[in-house]
Amino acid sequence: MEGSDRPLVLINSFEVPEGREDEFIRGWEATRDYLEAQPGYVDTALHQAVSPNPDFRFVNVGRWESPQAFQAAIQSAGFRGVSEALAEFRPHPALYKIVRT
Amino acid sequence: MEGSDRPLVLINSFEVPEGREDEFIRGWEATRDYLEAQPGYVDTALHQAVSPNPDFRFVNVGRWESPQAFQAAIQSAGFRGVSEALAEFRPHPALYKIVRT
Repeated sequence: MEGSDRPLVLINSFEVPEGREDEFIRGWEATRDYLEAQPGYVDTALHQAVSPNPDFRFVNVGRWESPQAFQAAIQSAGFRGVSEALAEFRPHPALYKIVRT
Repeated sequence: MEGSDRPLVLINSFEVPEGREDEFIRGWEATRDYLEAQPGYVDTALHQAVSPNPDFRFVNVGRWESPQAFQAAIQSAGFRGVSEALAEFRPHPALYKIVRT
């Protein structure tokens, strides 16, 4: 971990049906473009499954400086609009800290 | 991503009931100790949720040089024994590649 003392990690696993990958990625990109301009954003990486029949075809792993910064970003006025395209892909988000390596 | 050209990422989300965190971590450590000695292992990080009521209280994010190395490791003779303590915490594993940042 680099950056300001151990940022929090947002891990958000999405249930995306086969064949809708491109649609999901477009929605994810719009959401990323919005969030990366918000205070406290560190970085993010979208992971796509290469295993067959994954429970979660996409997992976003992003870092934020604090839980307050993340909560403010997703409660901001612009967030709902940009993230609408992702709403139908069931997400499983939570904030994490790294406890073992 | 550092290391040999973009290793694969294993993301494994575990359903762990509240109050059983220490038991889970002990089982995870035993499994990590075994896997880190296997060919193709790169590194790993265990993430613990700080959000209330997460769908997945723990998420392991590990890197492997290839899917073949990972499959060989989890099919190896010693793996079943060391990973037994984790078996009752429902896992959701898949191998991923990073497709967007």
